[in-house]
Amino acid sequence: MALLRDMTLGGFSDELAADSAAPGGGSVAALSGALGAALVSMVCRLTIGKKGYEEYEHEVKEVLAESEILRKRLLEAIDIDAKAFEKVMDAFAAPKSTDEEKSVRREMIQTAFKGACESPRRTAADCLEVLRLCARVADKTNTNAASDLGVGASNALAALESAAMNVLINLPSIKDDEYVDELRDEMEAIQEEGGILRTGVLREISVHIGGN
Amino acid sequence: MALLRDMTLGGFSDELAADSAAPGGGSVAALSGALGAALVSMVCRLTIGKKGYEEYEHEVKEVLAESEILRKRLLEAIDIDAKAFEKVMDAFAAPKSTDEEKSVRREMIQTAFKGACESPRRTAADCLEVLRLCARVADKTNTNAASDLGVGASNALAALESAAMNVLINLPSIKDDEYVDELRDEMEAIQEEGGILRTGVLREISVHIGGN
Repeated sequence: MALLRDMTLGGFSDELAADSAAPGGGSVAALSGALGAALVSMVCRLTIGKKGYEEYEHEVKEVLAESEILRKRLLEAIDIDAKAFEKVMDAFAAPKSTDEEKSVRREMIQTAFKGACESPRRTAADCLEVLRLCARVADKTNTNAASDLGVGASNALAALESAAMNVLINLPSIKDDEYVDELRDEMEAIQEEGGILRTGVLREISVHIGGN
Repeated sequence: MALLRDMTLGGFSDELAADSAAPGGGSVAALSGALGAALVSMVCRLTIGKKGYEEYEHEVKEVLAESEILRKRLLEAIDIDAKAFEKVMDAFAAPKSTDEEKSVRREMIQTAFKGACESPRRTAADCLEVLRLCARVADKTNTNAASDLGVGASNALAALESAAMNVLINLPSIKDDEYVDELRDEMEAIQEEGGILRTGVLREISVHIGGN
């Protein structure tokens, strides 16, 4: 199959809406995160070289470089997530006639479920980084693009929460309790920090968007 | 220019990250809403014909028909929003040498700003509909896809809030106080209902996603 990130917006939306579980919420989380990062990049670019923002230029350029790295990684995660999900399906389809086959299959399923957690786990962490970048430049960027930064932060938080849901839904299938506890704590902490960061960004830009 | 919705995910993300204000947050709001609607459609399709969900089949099919209409409309709004923004730019570029030109230009600017409000206003209303659909089927759809419905709801709410920010940022430029007050009230009400609906959906699915 062609890469999902090479499909058109309309085509990807069709593929998503179809009656197959992949691509699903995990790929949408990655895409939403990439769109959030793209808006951070845009707002930085609309600031660099503009009068009144000279003193922030160095930091805004730094943030732009980081948001571009995150954007690229999150775009790649759209496909990585769908593939990780397919591996779970493949593992369930493995032969299970003999005891040895059953044991191998059990192992494959456990490995695949961990893989299906690791992909959204990375997406959640990357989206938290996008939110940190939003917060860093919220009072240093072009106020004409304030709503774009707000949309970037809202998208990054929705993506983070979406990625966390995709981690959590796999945990009941994983028998490694230490790993499960670690991931549950990590997702809780990431969601809490993400929420606080977005609230801060919206507060900072609210004065420029004529409401709230 | 080609339609934005015909661009690839990667290409659209590049275009978004570029140093031009369009496409921007308004188009991202519409796209996020379309992705939310697509996930509602997927979850409905993964439910129809499945054992254990027979009693909900009629309602799930109704919701699917509605989510597909919303998905199509939100995909179209990606381009409509970018065009509405360009009209504001065009209005500012209109000639302003004579008093008559100045008066015509002022009128053009006001009309363009209202247009730039109406597009995200429709997107916000459509995203609220997506959230209502999520809430309607949250306890009637395939629990294996619970996280997908949660991601759909999170995306629809982020899209709704993003659309509202795109309405609000234009209000200070509009001189029609009645219109401004009406839109501000409408956005507040839509955001409040949207937040309540998403909380309800997440509560409903939380039992299936092994956390929270």
